[in-house]
Parts: sequence; C-alpha cells; structure tokens
Amino acid sequence: MTLHLAKICKGCWQQLYLPVPLRGVASVPFRAFGIRPSRMNPNICTICELMFSTVMRARKITLDATVLFADLRGYTSLSQTQSPDAMSGLLDAFYDECASAIWEHDGLLNKTIGDAIMVIFNFPIRQDDHTLQAVLAARAIQDRWRVRRETLPGLTGGDLGIGIGIHCGELSFGEFGRSHRDLTAIGTVVNTASRAQSVAAAGEILLTQAVYDRVSSELVGSRPQEYSLKGFETPIQLYAA
Amino acid sequence: MTLHLAKICKGCWQQLYLPVPLRGVASVPFRAFGIRPSRMNPNICTICELMFSTVMRARKITLDATVLFADLRGYTSLSQTQSPDAMSGLLDAFYDECASAIWEHDGLLNKTIGDAIMVIFNFPIRQDDHTLQAVLAARAIQDRWRVRRETLPGLTGGDLGIGIGIHCGELSFGEFGRSHRDLTAIGTVVNTASRAQSVAAAGEILLTQAVYDRVSSELVGSRPQEYSLKGFETPIQLYAA
Repeated sequence: MTLHLAKICKGCWQQLYLPVPLRGVASVPFRAFGIRPSRMNPNICTICELMFSTVMRARKITLDATVLFADLRGYTSLSQTQSPDAMSGLLDAFYDECASAIWEHDGLLNKTIGDAIMVIFNFPIRQDDHTLQAVLAARAIQDRWRVRRETLPGLTGGDLGIGIGIHCGELSFGEFGRSHRDLTAIGTVVNTASRAQSVAAAGEILLTQAVYDRVSSELVGSRPQEYSLKGFETPIQLYAA
Repeated sequence: MTLHLAKICKGCWQQLYLPVPLRGVASVPFRAFGIRPSRMNPNICTICELMFSTVMRARKITLDATVLFADLRGYTSLSQTQSPDAMSGLLDAFYDECASAIWEHDGLLNKTIGDAIMVIFNFPIRQDDHTLQAVLAARAIQDRWRVRRETLPGLTGGDLGIGIGIHCGELSFGEFGRSHRDLTAIGTVVNTASRAQSVAAAGEILLTQAVYDRVSSELVGSRPQEYSLKGFETPIQLYAA
C-alpha cells in the first residue's frame, strides 16, 4: 500500500487543534486508553468516531457531504465457478484498492456490505472540495482496479468491474438507536447515491446533477442520460465521470 | 427495553467453554482489557467479534447461516415533510425495535445501512434452528413495529412499514481486506436476501424456497409467488411468512 500515513489524527487536529499521535512512541500512552487509528480511515483516530457523544455532546449532526457507493459487479455469479479462497482473495483486493483510493482523498470508508462499500466525504475530515475529492477517489478506484485485476488469478478480460454512484447534499450522520450503536448516514442523499450505483455498468462512475454542478469543470463533454431509479417517481439525469 | 441480558458471553461459552463476564463486578477487570458487550449483540463480547484472527487463527469462515435484511419503507419520502429531529427519532425507534427482536432470537445485528439493517443468524452464537429463529425475529420486528409506530409523533395510519427478506445457506463470514478491517458476510445468500427484501411490501416478510423448506411447518397455507429480482436471470419463488 502506497498510502501516506499521518503521524497525528487529522480529524482532531482540524476540529479541536488537538495533536493526537497515531503512530510511533508518542502514540503508546494513547493506545493504552483505546485511542488508535480508526478502521474507517487510518489518518483519523477512534476519538473521531465518538466525536458526537464524547466531544460534540450530540448524537448526530446534519452536514453537507458527498456519499459514494461502489459495488463489485459479477462477484456473486463468479462465486459459482471459483473456490471460496479465490473469491476471498478477490474481495480482499477490492477492499484494499478501494480503501487506498478513498483514504488518499480523505474519505471515510463507513461500511462494507458484502461486495459493496459505502463512503462519506467531509466527515470527520472537513474538505471544502469534498465532492471533487469523491469524484477523484472514484476515478482512482477504477484506475487501481484495472491494474490490480490483471494480477488476480482466475479472472479473464472483462470479469469483475466496479460500478460507482455518487451524490451530494445535506444528510444526517451519527449514531442512531439507543441500544445498538453504530455510525451511519441517513437521508435522501444516501439512497440516491445507492440507486445511482445500482444502474452504473461495470467500470462506470455515475454522478447526479448536484455532483455535476459542483465539479463540471472536471467533466468536459459529459452529457446526462436519463435513468429510472427504483423509488423515484420521475426519471433522473446522471452523468458519467 | 425488555431484553433479557446474559451475565456471561454466550458465544465464548458455547465455543470455548470460557465464562467471560459481561455485567456486574466480575466484568470490571475484563473491561479494562477492552472486553465488553458487543455492539452487535449485547449477549456476546468483543472477543467474539475477533474470534477469527485471535481465537480461530483464520480471517474468515464458511458456514451455514441465515441472513435477514429489513428496510423502513417510505422513510426517505417522509423525510421531505418532517423535521430532521422527528426523522432521527423514527430511526432510533426502528433500530431499537429491530435490535430487541433480533437479540431475543440470538441474531447478530451486523450492519445498519441508512434506513436498512443486515442481520446474521448462527454466528457467533450457534443455533441448530437458526432459520426458524430468523423467521420468528422477523415476525417480532413486525409486531413490535406495529405497536411502536402508534406512539410516534408525526405518523399517520399506514406510514412507514418495514419490508423484510430472508435467505439461508452457505456463506463466508469474517474480515475481508488487509488495510480496512470490518466484519461482513459474503456470498449469494447475502445478495439474494437483500433482493428479496427489496421486493417485500411494507409490513411483509418474504422467504426464499430454501427458508421455506426448513420452516414449512410454521407456514401453513403460504403459497409461493414469482418475483423477478435484479441480477437473477430467471424469476424466483418467494413465500410470505
């Protein structure tokens, strides 16, 4: 992995001006108190995951953010002809390439759901250009995967491409439920990003109008296409990135 | 919450004959080492979540299990007319009722994904009748929600029902990816359960043929209906529970 790892937590530094060591000798006492790099992004710490309850004294916040869904197309059908070990190896590779691309762009790998992932940009690391960063991360995922795929045993030519959908806007992020605690994001933005992903072909990145409006300078020549998404009454326009 | 909470970890007891205290004075030294009730099920401990790497020396296992997906129908469209606070309260209630029903039947609330949840039965708590337990949990979710919904402000009559899909069979469960660590389940079973949920109406529980075959004595009079699911070439039969 070629990812540059931060020495202190980017989230705590940005939001609290607090230098929380993540690596090296200085991090040892912190680790004794359970403060270590987050699994969702190694450049933030576990305090950031608890930012709501512990630091902000809120359980959830509303913010402008960008949500990215990516899914490994054809994984399920391939699993009918490949060994479980080979399939595990493929998924390891998929998660690793996605994680590297996302963390380079300061995204939060919030969930893995079978052969899909859900990513949030603009929390806890704040970015003025979070929508652009999400689009760049999506392209990096596709580029990395095209290279990595060639090295994986058992795959031929067009097997296993990644479909990606991105949407941005206001959403709620935090811990929902009193008895089960788990970070998640809620709102139309999340559902729309997920739906956009579901219609993306292998190798494709589909953006909503809201995303296009923010990053159009990066998308010269991209024309909208109409898609009928489940749960949406009228067809919506999506752009390829 | 009326859930009966176990004093020792059910998973460690069942699999290792190890009494790991979860509550009370005896649990204090364990908590100092980070061993505490799991967020995914308060009757198992955080060791169970690491069962693979720490105890079984494997990163994933293949097992026969039952997967349940549940989704709060109409949440997104309702969020366009209700305040964010009201919507948070609804989701808190949804997660809590689901968690209670699932934990009563020893399921693992593996993921919350926006207004949906993913649940696994038969790990780490082993159950010979895990498929039946999943069906009973699904019915308990619907029963609890029908009662709870009446008490929630801002809802009228048929607003916000829950759609549930269940499938069972062999799947892989464990940690995938080297750089990002997160427990998830992989395989056709997961995708099929998710698809079955996507076609369930509000208030409905849909079961695959495999689930029906295991619990048919509980389902007198249930007749299959044909559904075309995304990603499946031929229509499949689903039963209402």
